[in-house]
Amino acid sequence: MAALVRGSRNLLRSFGQHVGLALVSSRALASKTPVGFIGLGNMGDPMAKNLLKHGYPVIASDIFPESCKEIQDMGAQILDSPAEVADKADRIITMLPSSPNVIEVYTGPNGILKKVKKGSLLIDSSTIDPAVSKEMALAAEKMGAVFMDAPVSGGVGAASSGKLTFMVGGAEEEFNAAKELLTCMGANVVYCGAVGTGQAAKICNNMLLAIGMIGTAETMNLGIRLGLDPKLLAQILNMSSGRCWSSDAYNPVPGVMEGVPSANSYQGGFGTTLMAKDLGLAQNSATNTKTAVPLGSLAHQIYRMMCARGYAKKDFSSVFQFLREEESQ
Amino acid sequence: MAALVRGSRNLLRSFGQHVGLALVSSRALASKTPVGFIGLGNMGDPMAKNLLKHGYPVIASDIFPESCKEIQDMGAQILDSPAEVADKADRIITMLPSSPNVIEVYTGPNGILKKVKKGSLLIDSSTIDPAVSKEMALAAEKMGAVFMDAPVSGGVGAASSGKLTFMVGGAEEEFNAAKELLTCMGANVVYCGAVGTGQAAKICNNMLLAIGMIGTAETMNLGIRLGLDPKLLAQILNMSSGRCWSSDAYNPVPGVMEGVPSANSYQGGFGTTLMAKDLGLAQNSATNTKTAVPLGSLAHQIYRMMCARGYAKKDFSSVFQFLREEESQ
Amino acid sequence: MAALVRGSRNLLRSFGQHVGLALVSSRALASKTPVGFIGLGNMGDPMAKNLLKHGYPVIASDIFPESCKEIQDMGAQILDSPAEVADKADRIITMLPSSPNVIEVYTGPNGILKKVKKGSLLIDSSTIDPAVSKEMALAAEKMGAVFMDAPVSGGVGAASSGKLTFMVGGAEEEFNAAKELLTCMGANVVYCGAVGTGQAAKICNNMLLAIGMIGTAETMNLGIRLGLDPKLLAQILNMSSGRCWSSDAYNPVPGVMEGVPSANSYQGGFGTTLMAKDLGLAQNSATNTKTAVPLGSLAHQIYRMMCARGYAKKDFSSVFQFLREEESQ
Amino acid sequence: MAALVRGSRNLLRSFGQHVGLALVSSRALASKTPVGFIGLGNMGDPMAKNLLKHGYPVIASDIFPESCKEIQDMGAQILDSPAEVADKADRIITMLPSSPNVIEVYTGPNGILKKVKKGSLLIDSSTIDPAVSKEMALAAEKMGAVFMDAPVSGGVGAASSGKLTFMVGGAEEEFNAAKELLTCMGANVVYCGAVGTGQAAKICNNMLLAIGMIGTAETMNLGIRLGLDPKLLAQILNMSSGRCWSSDAYNPVPGVMEGVPSANSYQGGFGTTLMAKDLGLAQNSATNTKTAVPLGSLAHQIYRMMCARGYAKKDFSSVFQFLREEESQ
Repeated sequence: MAALVRGSRNLLRSFGQHVGLALVSSRALASKTPVGFIGLGNMGDPMAKNLLKHGYPVIASDIFPESCKEIQDMGAQILDSPAEVADKADRIITMLPSSPNVIEVYTGPNGILKKVKKGSLLIDSSTIDPAVSKEMALAAEKMGAVFMDAPVSGGVGAASSGKLTFMVGGAEEEFNAAKELLTCMGANVVYCGAVGTGQAAKICNNMLLAIGMIGTAETMNLGIRLGLDPKLLAQILNMSSGRCWSSDAYNPVPGVMEGVPSANSYQGGFGTTLMAKDLGLAQNSATNTKTAVPLGSLAHQIYRMMCARGYAKKDFSSVFQFLREEESQ
Repeated sequence: MAALVRGSRNLLRSFGQHVGLALVSSRALASKTPVGFIGLGNMGDPMAKNLLKHGYPVIASDIFPESCKEIQDMGAQILDSPAEVADKADRIITMLPSSPNVIEVYTGPNGILKKVKKGSLLIDSSTIDPAVSKEMALAAEKMGAVFMDAPVSGGVGAASSGKLTFMVGGAEEEFNAAKELLTCMGANVVYCGAVGTGQAAKICNNMLLAIGMIGTAETMNLGIRLGLDPKLLAQILNMSSGRCWSSDAYNPVPGVMEGVPSANSYQGGFGTTLMAKDLGLAQNSATNTKTAVPLGSLAHQIYRMMCARGYAKKDFSSVFQFLREEESQ
Repeated sequence: MAALVRGSRNLLRSFGQHVGLALVSSRALASKTPVGFIGLGNMGDPMAKNLLKHGYPVIASDIFPESCKEIQDMGAQILDSPAEVADKADRIITMLPSSPNVIEVYTGPNGILKKVKKGSLLIDSSTIDPAVSKEMALAAEKMGAVFMDAPVSGGVGAASSGKLTFMVGGAEEEFNAAKELLTCMGANVVYCGAVGTGQAAKICNNMLLAIGMIGTAETMNLGIRLGLDPKLLAQILNMSSGRCWSSDAYNPVPGVMEGVPSANSYQGGFGTTLMAKDLGLAQNSATNTKTAVPLGSLAHQIYRMMCARGYAKKDFSSVFQFLREEESQ
Repeated sequence: MAALVRGSRNLLRSFGQHVGLALVSSRALASKTPVGFIGLGNMGDPMAKNLLKHGYPVIASDIFPESCKEIQDMGAQILDSPAEVADKADRIITMLPSSPNVIEVYTGPNGILKKVKKGSLLIDSSTIDPAVSKEMALAAEKMGAVFMDAPVSGGVGAASSGKLTFMVGGAEEEFNAAKELLTCMGANVVYCGAVGTGQAAKICNNMLLAIGMIGTAETMNLGIRLGLDPKLLAQILNMSSGRCWSSDAYNPVPGVMEGVPSANSYQGGFGTTLMAKDLGLAQNSATNTKTAVPLGSLAHQIYRMMCARGYAKKDFSSVFQFLREEESQ
């Protein structure tokens, strides 16, 4: 749950207000008609189950047939390809590991766009390059369909409990239609702007998160070396201008907080590999837009080095451990 | 007010409790006996005036006699050197620009330690290298005096209104005696540990502050380039794991918040030069303790570059402007 | 001439030897049959002229018809599109600004591959992402053609005088056929390995070049501040382990060397924008291959900041000036 | 031998010419009178032995008496403290681990300056902060003595074989007197300017060396990942603008060169800890002079991280291994 969103009720209300009434399309009226779902991995599977629980018939597909077993037992219909799903459902959610998978699932030979119906709503919850989201939106538009990007924050736990946060990019008049489905799977659904801005919001947040986490780890480490008690230092930071989510909600130093990965040998949480992936997306976006992101770029490199030195599967707060002097030295 | 501390009542109560009763020395009973004050600059002058306002006779000195005029008119006695002040007062506060000044004022030929009385309490509120604080404490101890470091957070405004925060390092049994004076000048007085830990807490906080500020500037810049509305992006970050003091209390993007330097052409606030100085102290401490601080180190370099490129006197949040593409391009 | 290659005779001889005899194809026998050339910009135009001078009929195309005028007057045939060129010539050289242009020229609706002849040799001298080179090679292979990447080092001057260096990636048995043409335009033709390795060699070189240049600028700047004479410092570095091309052949400090951009207000040479572009390619390749490149990444960010602060068109050695304190301070 | 200096004959001749005739002092005439030597560690011991071999009587001292045993057997006189050495010898060489040791040996209670003779020549070959060298020179001057800084490049091997390079800072008219002694221990003696510039030259060189080494490691690593043969990539870089000492004389990739630490499991050579120390000095000097050294600063951090992750005793070229993906991943 590296990117937990909370206490956002007021904000969301204001979003709701400025969104206004969505155009009432035939699709929107067709509530509880089947929803397509492509990608039943660790995240996609509990998300699709939550759709089922809310009474939506689900028509799903995954390249690994064994991933479909559980949800099939719960009543979902399983088809062989994204194209076949698009043939049956006019609202489809995709949840895939990375950009190439998204490109394949949408524009490949058996992709959604091969058989997509006019007016379909396609929602991609994968975390990918916003430039790819824009490409997919263009390709969908050519087929008369609507594409929105809606990456999530929150991990497997939030996916299971339906407490994800969705950051949504796409045409504003389609937002309510998307929200109807997304609220089955998440506690917060935030409208971010044009297509790609959902991805942009997510990678921006995670870049700043990574910077704050490494910065907190460095600072705690330095303070401890200078003789400060870690808990006291955390308290001082948290009531001062140094405070950030990583210092006050997810402190990386063992013994400072309970219930966070640093209290549990950096198990669980948000893996270093996943953070490195998101920082790579941020880096690509920065390079494409010629934006200088010196700390974001160095944060990317540090998580890359950690992946190479045995920290790939630990929570990303383990950077505290990575930067510390080894005990044996 | 780069390092504003707030909402710390509960924390301070617990500090108060664990501090316990200070040894009742003859000095502590001598309340309202004269207090020495060395260094009447932008910060020192209003601090000394607050001591006067609380009824303490002040005996002051500054290398620039003209700096003493105002406080003299308010009733302070002005002497020629730190040594002479030490001859008259057994509680002395020093507020000086940097380590060499502190060394000179304490151990120089006309320094405090030349005439310090046994049992005197010497409180240094300058922001300097914690290693120098330790040296001064040792030198004071040899003369039978007690040295504490008590750097402040909060700027000239907080100094005038008596709302500074003091981070105090030194013998715990002397903390209450120091606190009696410091509460005349500040709203929060935090005990940090052994000598030098006050400085350590301050430079740790400011290092993390700088990292958070540059990170926020990069992130806001990237998000804007990717099509996000700056206010919306700030809202999203602030309810997510990317939030930090720089994003939610001091946002560097003009138009996002009111009442902060970014809303006023980056005037006022905490100057880039001062931040570069504090980051230099953090870097020195990290080098001395062999601590890896990659982001803190790069933050130092970025503020150094900004000083070289015309940003020396702007608020440190102007890094947003520094990283942005020039309008003329 | 940012990437001058020199003194490589022995190396090339050994390359020649290990390359062995190329398969004698009908195309190789067809020497002095027409050569296609797409992209007549600052670099492409003098390169195509050198082909003409060596007696090769040239069939050229450029999206800007006015770019074709000079070479048309020298006898080249001008066609409307890459596809038409491919219809007439079975050896084609492309020299384009960036990856999207290459993708368009090869795989676009009027691209080379629309009409390419079986067995054609397609040589791309653009500097692009090696991953794109591999994609183009695959697409060409499907049409029965051979694609090689052959980016150059050396600037407009070297292009005019036929002194470029080509770094060539592709099937080894086709290297001699490519070399026959490339030697008309360059002094060195180096075989690097499979498709994409020409690009890889170029971006690797330029990444290390940028690191060496910034490092030299920092070091010279620091030495000068510490009281060293710049010429003397350069001499010491150049006879020591600090030496690099940027210190001994292209020193960035005005007054140290003659005939380099630093002696001419950083005019001419290799522009900061171009270096930023190449570092962006290096960054992309590093991100794709999950390679940690901390200094390369920071070098990228520094050139990005320079572009944002008015250095876009100056030679990349102007980083010395960028890092220096401003005179007015 | 991280900082090997070679092929410097012509340069040195010109130094000799511009140095001119040194003032003939009584001390200069006193050739083969005893020379003091303080600090008989790994470097100092073989250096002092070379003075003996050249016929100079040596009067030595070290805080570890057992370090003096070998040289005592070779005929050196051993005294208890630097002060006593200064009482007997008017030319003294010091070779100590770091700044605090130098301060102690010169200005401590049993330090050289307690008993130094007027007109003595004091040469410090330690690698320390140039600011400390300047302080020592001032302190020596007050006692009527001359202090010069003369740090070395070259390791234990060069110290044994008398092939060190000395970079000398101090009064130019004393250079020849210093050179007379230093040539017994080194192959090159380079005059750098005022006191402190010897240190400045050394730390500048080593900062650029570290940048070049990490840059080479990153570049080779990236190239290999992109499919280039390491030997071929090294050849290409070395004939191009990417070349540097680390790529062409000390390549960090196992298998590319022979006779370097990378060919021997990174044993021998110049240890990561020592490089981190020198980069710390460079960082301090940069902070003191407010010089932006972004890559030098990051290089420092990287070597600091390596020290924390088990690379402390390996040669500094092991950064190639540190940045590489672990085999087990």
